[in-house]
Amino acid sequence: MIGSLKFDYKISTQSVWCKVIYIDKNAKNVENSVMKTIKPYLHKVNYYETDKMGITHHSNYIRFMEEARVDFLDQIGWSFIKLENEGMASPVMSVEGVYKKSTAFPDVIEIMVGIEKLSPAKLTFSYEFKSKGDVVFLGKSTHCFLDKNGRPVLIEKQYPDFFADLKEIYGA
Amino acid sequence: MIGSLKFDYKISTQSVWCKVIYIDKNAKNVENSVMKTIKPYLHKVNYYETDKMGITHHSNYIRFMEEARVDFLDQIGWSFIKLENEGMASPVMSVEGVYKKSTAFPDVIEIMVGIEKLSPAKLTFSYEFKSKGDVVFLGKSTHCFLDKNGRPVLIEKQYPDFFADLKEIYGA
Amino acid sequence: MIGSLKFDYKISTQSVWCKVIYIDKNAKNVENSVMKTIKPYLHKVNYYETDKMGITHHSNYIRFMEEARVDFLDQIGWSFIKLENEGMASPVMSVEGVYKKSTAFPDVIEIMVGIEKLSPAKLTFSYEFKSKGDVVFLGKSTHCFLDKNGRPVLIEKQYPDFFADLKEIYGA
Amino acid sequence: MIGSLKFDYKISTQSVWCKVIYIDKNAKNVENSVMKTIKPYLHKVNYYETDKMGITHHSNYIRFMEEARVDFLDQIGWSFIKLENEGMASPVMSVEGVYKKSTAFPDVIEIMVGIEKLSPAKLTFSYEFKSKGDVVFLGKSTHCFLDKNGRPVLIEKQYPDFFADLKEIYGA
Repeated sequence: MIGSLKFDYKISTQSVWCKVIYIDKNAKNVENSVMKTIKPYLHKVNYYETDKMGITHHSNYIRFMEEARVDFLDQIGWSFIKLENEGMASPVMSVEGVYKKSTAFPDVIEIMVGIEKLSPAKLTFSYEFKSKGDVVFLGKSTHCFLDKNGRPVLIEKQYPDFFADLKEIYGA
Repeated sequence: MIGSLKFDYKISTQSVWCKVIYIDKNAKNVENSVMKTIKPYLHKVNYYETDKMGITHHSNYIRFMEEARVDFLDQIGWSFIKLENEGMASPVMSVEGVYKKSTAFPDVIEIMVGIEKLSPAKLTFSYEFKSKGDVVFLGKSTHCFLDKNGRPVLIEKQYPDFFADLKEIYGA
Repeated sequence: MIGSLKFDYKISTQSVWCKVIYIDKNAKNVENSVMKTIKPYLHKVNYYETDKMGITHHSNYIRFMEEARVDFLDQIGWSFIKLENEGMASPVMSVEGVYKKSTAFPDVIEIMVGIEKLSPAKLTFSYEFKSKGDVVFLGKSTHCFLDKNGRPVLIEKQYPDFFADLKEIYGA
Repeated sequence: MIGSLKFDYKISTQSVWCKVIYIDKNAKNVENSVMKTIKPYLHKVNYYETDKMGITHHSNYIRFMEEARVDFLDQIGWSFIKLENEGMASPVMSVEGVYKKSTAFPDVIEIMVGIEKLSPAKLTFSYEFKSKGDVVFLGKSTHCFLDKNGRPVLIEKQYPDFFADLKEIYGA
């Protein structure tokens, strides 16, 4: 499902860095042409995020996806605040997630974000959550874009710089 | 702490109703002069509100206080939406709470809201949470009032009708 | 996506009731053979469930799905507490949701739950959220079943009564 | 209210460190006798923690207090997990908080935790939240201690090492 992404981790003493290698639609490996170094987002599970089963409540993963998405946009130079200052809102159109293994307090979850799909009007992020070396969750979220008046816009037209940067990462 | 409120419950088949009897500042019982029938707010503890101790996470009680406050204002004819339409915002200045007994999924918590203090600029609510007949939590929250421009206002001057209704309930 | 469910609403003064008509896998309408009256679950959006966009934060819908699922199981006679007393845990394997229209404080969301898929080991619920007459969200969640020792079990074998009841509702 | 704590910040390029200077009950400055270097806990406000007023919802501060308390106990060598492994639970008996200034997404809140009161059976933490140089919130939480069987215990007797470390920090 998230098969269009490959993660090549390099672990240093202080932090985990990661090369994200995007594979194009036609299954040709474009490792050389598109390569970006993006730091995974780390979320330490909080006590209040657990439930009576003793594990992280599943609803919180949707929130962690948002945290990681915010961080990802920061890293590529398009923070939420910058986007909001340009008058853009970016509501969630859909989410999905597959829970592979449970996590618990105080596990650290390492989240890699990728761009799964990009069209002139919509953007789909993919998320890979790892903890203690195991994939614990795979997620996706799709977003559209609204202007100052709450009307849907084509990012390609309305925000060409943002679209160009997304496209470069997407590797299309 | 919540000694200035007395609750006189009447339980019917479908719902629990309650007379709230306010006692004035000088400790004189004013039972006859001030009497209001207000329905307690019911919150059924959700699974996602529990934590790994198996009980309702303490932070949620602050949220239940807000739910009950919203419901109380609805019942006295001053819903949040009506207040917002009049341009008013009412931020929380302080909260406090004492946890008497734990609750768990799927307990029903019955919340009585009272007016603890009322001044021209500030309003303090008191909250009594009961479950299975026991008091489980006592809380308070203090609020000020802002106008459309985010400036603090005297409710007594700016919103005299709202203040008059609060004053009547408060029994001052 | 939620095409295998049909909802036939009857609205009275106090509450909304609903006949859920299940359509079988082979697309034959089995309206007459399987019919159940299940009350939709109502969630009133809380102030603390909104975000700075002024709308209900999308992550909360996953929580509302759980609230509705808990209520649905209560209605069919298999409450979470009863299931837990039988030693069963039922973790979430996957969730998905499509946001059709935003909701806001203090909207009431009416949630219909149905059984989308049922196999000896897995159960998929479907959810239809309506507010002010419009569909605002469509969701699904898939669950497996664990015994007292946290081992996956076949519900069909381990909990035959529960499975039989689900099967009857599912209409297979 | 939190007058018994003084914070002496040292800001380096990467992180903010802080000397916490405790002042004893009799208002004598015991700066020289008791001094501990504890790193403030940093919480970056998440989008989902905002509400429709555009600010961080007040209930979340109670959660941030827990995050900071967990981190504080980690730093002094008594993590929640270690305490739980010793069979201890530490429920919240009371909380209180005063909101001084609002915060918003994506503000970073810097939280200093101190020990406000220590008795053989109870522990009160104090919290100072700062953002952009201003104090935004002051809080307190009081905790008791339960053993494996859920019975209240005297930490001084049951967990003498933990009590001794708290006492040293408290400076009594």
